[in-house]
Amino acid sequence: MALRKKVLDVVTECFKRHGGVTIDTPVFELRNILMGKYGEEGGKLIYDLSDQGGELLSLRYDLTVPFARYLAMNKTVMYLKRYHIGKVYRRDNPSRGRFREFYQCDFDIAGSYDLMIPEAELLRIISEILNALDVGTFEIKVNHRLLLDGMFAVCGIPKKYFKAVCSSIDKLDKLPWEDVRNELCTDKHIHSDVVNKLETYVRLREHDNSLTNFDLLNWFEKDETTSKNNDIQKAVSEMKQLLEYCEIFGILSTVTIEPSLARGLDYYTGAIFEVTLKGTFEKTSMENGNADEEIQTVNIGSVAGGGRYDNLVSMFLPKHKVPCVGISIGIERLFTIMKEKSMIEHMRSKDTQILVVSAQKKLVKERMKICRLLWDNNIKAEMALKANPKMLDQMQYCEEHKIPLAVIVGERELEEGILKLRDVPSRTEQDIPRDDLVEELNRRLKHL
Amino acid sequence: MALRKKVLDVVTECFKRHGGVTIDTPVFELRNILMGKYGEEGGKLIYDLSDQGGELLSLRYDLTVPFARYLAMNKTVMYLKRYHIGKVYRRDNPSRGRFREFYQCDFDIAGSYDLMIPEAELLRIISEILNALDVGTFEIKVNHRLLLDGMFAVCGIPKKYFKAVCSSIDKLDKLPWEDVRNELCTDKHIHSDVVNKLETYVRLREHDNSLTNFDLLNWFEKDETTSKNNDIQKAVSEMKQLLEYCEIFGILSTVTIEPSLARGLDYYTGAIFEVTLKGTFEKTSMENGNADEEIQTVNIGSVAGGGRYDNLVSMFLPKHKVPCVGISIGIERLFTIMKEKSMIEHMRSKDTQILVVSAQKKLVKERMKICRLLWDNNIKAEMALKANPKMLDQMQYCEEHKIPLAVIVGERELEEGILKLRDVPSRTEQDIPRDDLVEELNRRLKHL
Repeated sequence: MALRKKVLDVVTECFKRHGGVTIDTPVFELRNILMGKYGEEGGKLIYDLSDQGGELLSLRYDLTVPFARYLAMNKTVMYLKRYHIGKVYRRDNPSRGRFREFYQCDFDIAGSYDLMIPEAELLRIISEILNALDVGTFEIKVNHRLLLDGMFAVCGIPKKYFKAVCSSIDKLDKLPWEDVRNELCTDKHIHSDVVNKLETYVRLREHDNSLTNFDLLNWFEKDETTSKNNDIQKAVSEMKQLLEYCEIFGILSTVTIEPSLARGLDYYTGAIFEVTLKGTFEKTSMENGNADEEIQTVNIGSVAGGGRYDNLVSMFLPKHKVPCVGISIGIERLFTIMKEKSMIEHMRSKDTQILVVSAQKKLVKERMKICRLLWDNNIKAEMALKANPKMLDQMQYCEEHKIPLAVIVGERELEEGILKLRDVPSRTEQDIPRDDLVEELNRRLKHL
Repeated sequence: MALRKKVLDVVTECFKRHGGVTIDTPVFELRNILMGKYGEEGGKLIYDLSDQGGELLSLRYDLTVPFARYLAMNKTVMYLKRYHIGKVYRRDNPSRGRFREFYQCDFDIAGSYDLMIPEAELLRIISEILNALDVGTFEIKVNHRLLLDGMFAVCGIPKKYFKAVCSSIDKLDKLPWEDVRNELCTDKHIHSDVVNKLETYVRLREHDNSLTNFDLLNWFEKDETTSKNNDIQKAVSEMKQLLEYCEIFGILSTVTIEPSLARGLDYYTGAIFEVTLKGTFEKTSMENGNADEEIQTVNIGSVAGGGRYDNLVSMFLPKHKVPCVGISIGIERLFTIMKEKSMIEHMRSKDTQILVVSAQKKLVKERMKICRLLWDNNIKAEMALKANPKMLDQMQYCEEHKIPLAVIVGERELEEGILKLRDVPSRTEQDIPRDDLVEELNRRLKHL
């Protein structure tokens, strides 16, 4: 939790730096609000509440649909930069390493703004956060709903296959083309000629890994077939604009235009983002019969995703159009990575600065008086909650919880109106007049 | 949310000052973990998840039972000062002014400690929080499970009526005795002789409002009947100890021993607490036919409750005994009170310090460059997300969101390598060399 708190603080700080306002929505939504928003797979993972009378409710699956529902219910809110850090719920299988309850950190920009300006700010936000957390190299993949629509159209894929084809080609970052091809032809009954056409587009990067983002977009602009498709040309021109803004924001080197990115939530209408972390990974290769140790850079998983959803609000309130774009950070994976990097070692689980200690028996009330004095002065202090604790146990408590200072109350000291102040790490002690205690502690705490 | 954040910050700060460590538990629990823990009324308010395969789950009703379940599952944790700020869920009727989802802020102390030392610290904690929030006068009511058990025993109330009688006498802070009496005799079929005996004890304070806490406890110590009951004598002696510690902690004046307090969650075994806020209230009295305006001090409701629950952990793991005591703050009412006190007026909903503004068209990229510079330096900055926003709209945005400074980019300024810095409230402007911008802003922000 101490580590989580640190990560969430970095995220919150960044969201506020960009003018975000936080809004909280309930964990449950009316069931029909969530229905049909998360694709085939997603829909099965929604947690429903029992019908105990009253409305049929489900637990939120993400923070985006509740936000759109909020905008539909608060019609006067036409512009909003909103962030929300909260938990979402999915009936997933924990054995697959997925959580059923996990934090999402969302930043959404609602309102009619100009092309790709909000998108560029969102990509800057996610970059700032990942840099601040120092989790290593990352890649921001960008695609566009209209590029997907256009590619499918020129290949001759009917609209009703949109979701099915998306879910297959999106697997290209994990599966070889042959598997994806097989899934499309065999499981989803797409004609092999169609799949061959589609291959040209979605494997452009695989076929030529020297392609820059601009090369790739230029290819779509010039290719005989794609140059005639309006959707594709609109997507290309918008993504070029986005790249230009990303350059100004100093994040261009992390952005990759990726035509096979189709992590399509059903409601995306424009730019689509996915952010993956790249880790270094020691791999023993057995090529040529020799065991070669090599360090490879591999994707260690998606940590954020998002996109533009201009029509979601009007699904809840017809004719009320509030264009939105958002990014959602799946913070659990970041926790795990930071934990593995053993960033947790130097963290303290509690903030206590002083333990009020006594060496002799029957001094519980004296310890209480000192605690009260310290609490009255906003100093983080504790005492053993036993009437006659052992000195050794008390000092062990300091060591275990890395409490830096101990105030020692003793009979002799009481008579003389003094207290002993012990520096725990160095084990040095000093007598302090009781009346000077708070001042002395504040002085020392400043230097800790 | 800005107000909530402020309240939660005060609570967290206090919990940390007392050495609390935070632990998060999931919002759902196995259904059978929650069953039979919340009395007759409470049980009906538990939200169940649908049976969609897998375990039968419910949403947490409070944070205490999940904490005890956590202790039962983590057997090595025998001592813990834990805090948890999270939401809980009750299928209550929103029309009665109750929320179905609300925050609770809990501090619990687990471990075998000495009599009433942890209890005293908890009462100190709630006092610190209410004082820091400045929500007015409050009263900490204290009772003891053994006093209730003993009183019922000497009155001849069988154990099986414990819950039913508790739920009636606990209403004495809201209903007149006659109504409570009626409920006990008519609805719950308690013999009127028994109810008469009970009346003596639970109305001690009503009959003599000059009774001090010690007077009241002494009465139970000396009364012919109660002096012979071991449970009562144990409760009296423990509560005397608690009062002594409360005096040392400087909170005695807010504590009231109240034998009718029976806000009994089923699992309390020792001290029971309830904290109510007292508000002033203008009331028009029509006595004697005259309309008299008088200012009365009235209870405006319970804001915290708690108690000792020594057997809850072993309900989940037999023979594993971890004594616990905790307090739970219902923060929603505090939000409401602070809202009514219009503490919200001076709060800003967003933290943005600088708006990067342009007077002429076609300067979107220049504004972006300035934003990047400011974000790179951790300055909270925004720009209008339109390509060519109007100056008036941009300045209105500053006023609306209380953004104190604006950086103005113009063509002339670009040529000269300067920027205009505008102080929004005073409308004064100053030219700044572009290279000095960050330094100048940091200097000004320090004084804001």
